[in-house]
Amino acid sequence: MLVMMQRNATPQDIQAVCDAIQVLGFNPLPMPGALRTAIGVAGDDGQVDTSHFEGMAGVASVLYDSKPYKQVSRDWQPEKSLVSIGHGVVFGGTEVPVVAGPCSVEGEDEIVHIARLVKAAGAVALRGGAYKPRTSPYAFQGLGEEGLRQLALARSETGLPIITEAMDERQADLVAKYADCIQLGARNMMNFSLLKHLGRLGVPVLLKRGMSATITEWLLAAEYIMSEGNRRIILCERGIRSYDTATRNVYDLSAIPVVQRLSHLPIIGDPSHGVGIRDAVPPLARATVAVGADGVIVEVHQQPDKAWSDGAQSLHPPQFEEMVRSLLPIAEAVGRSIMGAGTAVV
Amino acid sequence: MLVMMQRNATPQDIQAVCDAIQVLGFNPLPMPGALRTAIGVAGDDGQVDTSHFEGMAGVASVLYDSKPYKQVSRDWQPEKSLVSIGHGVVFGGTEVPVVAGPCSVEGEDEIVHIARLVKAAGAVALRGGAYKPRTSPYAFQGLGEEGLRQLALARSETGLPIITEAMDERQADLVAKYADCIQLGARNMMNFSLLKHLGRLGVPVLLKRGMSATITEWLLAAEYIMSEGNRRIILCERGIRSYDTATRNVYDLSAIPVVQRLSHLPIIGDPSHGVGIRDAVPPLARATVAVGADGVIVEVHQQPDKAWSDGAQSLHPPQFEEMVRSLLPIAEAVGRSIMGAGTAVV
Amino acid sequence: MLVMMQRNATPQDIQAVCDAIQVLGFNPLPMPGALRTAIGVAGDDGQVDTSHFEGMAGVASVLYDSKPYKQVSRDWQPEKSLVSIGHGVVFGGTEVPVVAGPCSVEGEDEIVHIARLVKAAGAVALRGGAYKPRTSPYAFQGLGEEGLRQLALARSETGLPIITEAMDERQADLVAKYADCIQLGARNMMNFSLLKHLGRLGVPVLLKRGMSATITEWLLAAEYIMSEGNRRIILCERGIRSYDTATRNVYDLSAIPVVQRLSHLPIIGDPSHGVGIRDAVPPLARATVAVGADGVIVEVHQQPDKAWSDGAQSLHPPQFEEMVRSLLPIAEAVGRSIMGAGTAVV
Amino acid sequence: MLVMMQRNATPQDIQAVCDAIQVLGFNPLPMPGALRTAIGVAGDDGQVDTSHFEGMAGVASVLYDSKPYKQVSRDWQPEKSLVSIGHGVVFGGTEVPVVAGPCSVEGEDEIVHIARLVKAAGAVALRGGAYKPRTSPYAFQGLGEEGLRQLALARSETGLPIITEAMDERQADLVAKYADCIQLGARNMMNFSLLKHLGRLGVPVLLKRGMSATITEWLLAAEYIMSEGNRRIILCERGIRSYDTATRNVYDLSAIPVVQRLSHLPIIGDPSHGVGIRDAVPPLARATVAVGADGVIVEVHQQPDKAWSDGAQSLHPPQFEEMVRSLLPIAEAVGRSIMGAGTAVV
Repeated sequence: MLVMMQRNATPQDIQAVCDAIQVLGFNPLPMPGALRTAIGVAGDDGQVDTSHFEGMAGVASVLYDSKPYKQVSRDWQPEKSLVSIGHGVVFGGTEVPVVAGPCSVEGEDEIVHIARLVKAAGAVALRGGAYKPRTSPYAFQGLGEEGLRQLALARSETGLPIITEAMDERQADLVAKYADCIQLGARNMMNFSLLKHLGRLGVPVLLKRGMSATITEWLLAAEYIMSEGNRRIILCERGIRSYDTATRNVYDLSAIPVVQRLSHLPIIGDPSHGVGIRDAVPPLARATVAVGADGVIVEVHQQPDKAWSDGAQSLHPPQFEEMVRSLLPIAEAVGRSIMGAGTAVV
Repeated sequence: MLVMMQRNATPQDIQAVCDAIQVLGFNPLPMPGALRTAIGVAGDDGQVDTSHFEGMAGVASVLYDSKPYKQVSRDWQPEKSLVSIGHGVVFGGTEVPVVAGPCSVEGEDEIVHIARLVKAAGAVALRGGAYKPRTSPYAFQGLGEEGLRQLALARSETGLPIITEAMDERQADLVAKYADCIQLGARNMMNFSLLKHLGRLGVPVLLKRGMSATITEWLLAAEYIMSEGNRRIILCERGIRSYDTATRNVYDLSAIPVVQRLSHLPIIGDPSHGVGIRDAVPPLARATVAVGADGVIVEVHQQPDKAWSDGAQSLHPPQFEEMVRSLLPIAEAVGRSIMGAGTAVV
Repeated sequence: MLVMMQRNATPQDIQAVCDAIQVLGFNPLPMPGALRTAIGVAGDDGQVDTSHFEGMAGVASVLYDSKPYKQVSRDWQPEKSLVSIGHGVVFGGTEVPVVAGPCSVEGEDEIVHIARLVKAAGAVALRGGAYKPRTSPYAFQGLGEEGLRQLALARSETGLPIITEAMDERQADLVAKYADCIQLGARNMMNFSLLKHLGRLGVPVLLKRGMSATITEWLLAAEYIMSEGNRRIILCERGIRSYDTATRNVYDLSAIPVVQRLSHLPIIGDPSHGVGIRDAVPPLARATVAVGADGVIVEVHQQPDKAWSDGAQSLHPPQFEEMVRSLLPIAEAVGRSIMGAGTAVV
Repeated sequence: MLVMMQRNATPQDIQAVCDAIQVLGFNPLPMPGALRTAIGVAGDDGQVDTSHFEGMAGVASVLYDSKPYKQVSRDWQPEKSLVSIGHGVVFGGTEVPVVAGPCSVEGEDEIVHIARLVKAAGAVALRGGAYKPRTSPYAFQGLGEEGLRQLALARSETGLPIITEAMDERQADLVAKYADCIQLGARNMMNFSLLKHLGRLGVPVLLKRGMSATITEWLLAAEYIMSEGNRRIILCERGIRSYDTATRNVYDLSAIPVVQRLSHLPIIGDPSHGVGIRDAVPPLARATVAVGADGVIVEVHQQPDKAWSDGAQSLHPPQFEEMVRSLLPIAEAVGRSIMGAGTAVV
């Protein structure tokens, strides 16, 4: 951190800043310049609240080396983390898992049926919502524990591990009983109480990026989970808020190589929520693998026109099958392979 | 809602959309045009998920009259709501309450002292965080229940009602025991479980706008609370996320007249979080009253340079006193008055 | 500027950065820290391109004191600039000018008529577009030089100085012949060729903020004009792009006090474009004066329902008259007055 | 277009809207509903200004089918456009051209040398700026016509066609004499005068997306060029403005499949500006080809640490060579090939 003093800052102003730095337990390093003085803060590891200084007399601005996260960083652990969700599905290795399923669990027959279809097409894990975060209180909110039971049935029928969302601590405790990986959704990325709870639960977490979260904030959300002892975190880019209504979100694929440089955690992409337009999902899934993501998650529905939610972005099963097939040579081109699907489909 | 068909949509495509509308319980109204057919949906009151239609064959786009909220709308209740938080403090009338206090509760002496100072300067309610939502898990997280106890002490010493934040259901239950109004913070505006819980608790809620929430999403968050039976909701504009780092957020004062046209709920403004720069808070507080807000909430600290959080945006007590004094003629100019402060200060 | 080295940067890496700084003509100031070395750059006044360093071996990040503008800054000139556009209308003093008129000039009778109406209601300058920047090539593009001629007629009939937009150099040369102040619109804020041309023309410039311009970029656009010798610049906040379609833009009133701290240039607000909703314009105009703006500009049309452009945000003449009247006590409350209108209207 | 009336709109209000629609030359289609009346506008092809209606008495909102562009749309021309810039380089076919070169032209030897390097590595066209749009007036502004001359020399030495930017009409006339394709930069995407001028010039145009342009606005910018008779337009996604400073922009790859559905124009991607971080450029270039873009353009510099601009995002020549090699199997995987490079490199 570096505190830039104003040109007309007095020696007293400078001393006051140096004193404030020492009060916080760090060493001030004043650097008088031609026009103004800058004061370095040595030993700062991201914990200092810059607002301590921004309002002090004579301070022009505070420059900040913004990497306040620790355990999730490559500095802390240079080698990539491998995160297993069981049933042989590991994120972060050379094999790229494809996760698929409907937006919402809509019934026992439906979820078992779609689970079989996506498995046959190459998916190695099943997604599906039992608890749905809906903007309107009058929209369908999910089947709840009955939905979890149906997901577990689909797993026992297909062997696919389950990823499903929880929106509060009670739901998380229940989801942990049924599912293999708990999804923490975009709207709750800064629900710090829930992040800590997931850290204590110890179940693998799929941590979606918040609607307008910076990469730093996202990694700090992961740090919340990890600081409670849970290291099994998979990051998921799912699009950020934009001013353009032509797509549901802006699917930020740049985040994938950037996060991979900053953090050892595996990171996957969700083009279904990223773009929100069915026909754009397969090309963006290919781009997701090409950019080096550690996995892809998409929505698939038997009859998207009749889906209870997210119909417009759900793939038809034949589209999904064709999409997975198209990912194989892309993965190969970047020195990886699509998990499981290779043998089944080609 | 209106479903626009593509120019080359077939009669079968059109019929399929009409059928889908009927399956959902609404009446389709096809309107053949010179170039394409549009299909109106009669009786839709905001519950229909447009994604049902967006992906269907022959559909070009779905136009939506986006007012899916009901009980919070002016259509539902034309006259303004008055929300009391006790101790004679009511939001939504011609008197404009000023709420002030530190970002965090930092100790018994400190909170009682600042409570007396802000009361003397014209505040009619006290803010202060016992549970702090912090981006980093390593930052100060608040004094917890001890902080709530100290706030209650400050109230008994000054008579000022208390507004303080809760981040999960357990905290909300505790806060409800000590405080007069629970703040639901920006990061939790889409924490639907917590919204419902606050709806059932029945305590007045200060509902801050989410970091990148649209006005519709914000009003739907209020609808979540109201749909559980709690009508005592005060909206609070606190700045939205921006691409410009020159200010902490973009303080969206346009939201105030726009929300007042759409909803009967009182709405106040928080320029401290909105801009994040101490010296810009008083002019923006004046603008908040001038634009017609139903209240102002600001951060004040005895020694902002030593604040444990948000020091850069906290006012010095003399600045706050001068700010309140400057609000009086502004309120008068817009046909209102500053609650309580009128007699005390001028 | 401060170059932060990575923890594992080698002495050679550090030397290479120091050498690169010297090549650019500045002094490197290495500061070895507990964990990493930082290298200060003394004498840098904003000209250095940080990208020189960001990609060098061993560099973690480059921290930047982002005030690359000079002549427009308060550092350069502490006292406020007064910018006259003639006819006794000066921006930047205690008197606050109100500028009004239609979006587009639509005919001789119409512009003369509206000019008389807005003058009677308290406006001291007339706005109106002869050249219109329209998103679609098929939309009405303005009357061109004929519109300028009509504006000049309205001035000769009323004495109101004219502010009107130019979108290229040829138009600017023509506008300079007819008008008292050239508007540089939001879409051209980074049209650097046109900025330089306006700098050479020497006519007063109303410089609107770009659709997604940071405050720094905006002040640098002013610096482009000033660096060519034209110091008569009035900044105009007119809303920035947002993700929320509830308003046309986000009207960023925070920018006004923030810019006033950074720059000596007068800054006014345009709530008509800022919010885009007629009924929200008067309260936002009051907020504009309350926040301390050096002027207000709004759209007024005899019959907004028949306006050729921007009808939804144009005020009816009686609304405008009432708005100006309501600004008087607000201006007084902040120690200013509404130019001219005071005597005429009250 | 559909005008939604308020619930309490009077028959007179409805009639007034119908009349206003007829005045504009369209047919009103009133649809009385259970709760309110909607009025369709038949025959509207995107020219109607919705603000005509938004402010009328009794109008609740105006729903709009937002495709106001014509000649650039797939509706107008279903088959993809092929745009040649000469020297055998065509955009829009199955062969994907790679364009490369420095940010700025920095000297005769330098540009000829880098042109040879990028050609050897597989580039089929050369980029390089002679006129540079710089945020600061004190930053390097380009070599001007001397830079154009040097580019032409590089072309005569290598056979690579040249793409370079013009920022105003005079520059465009000069660039047209020297270059094969004129770049219209992001900051000028709404410089409508320049767009029209490029339409009349008839030279191929590389039209970059504006910093915060919607896809509709971008296609309308292309419509401006095309409406003047120039159909040789190549769109270029280069990242949009974001709230996150971790990357230079958000590189919006979703735009590529979305634009390809809406328009017949070829569209390429510029990951260098999109992300602004050298090491993230090659993976994003792979994603660009994987998503189906019609070309890739990147910055390459012999010694990025010494580049006069954009050093942090410029590739080292060996990185570029490796990047092009890695694109070959990606292109093949999506049924395309990298133009020229196939034979040279593998």
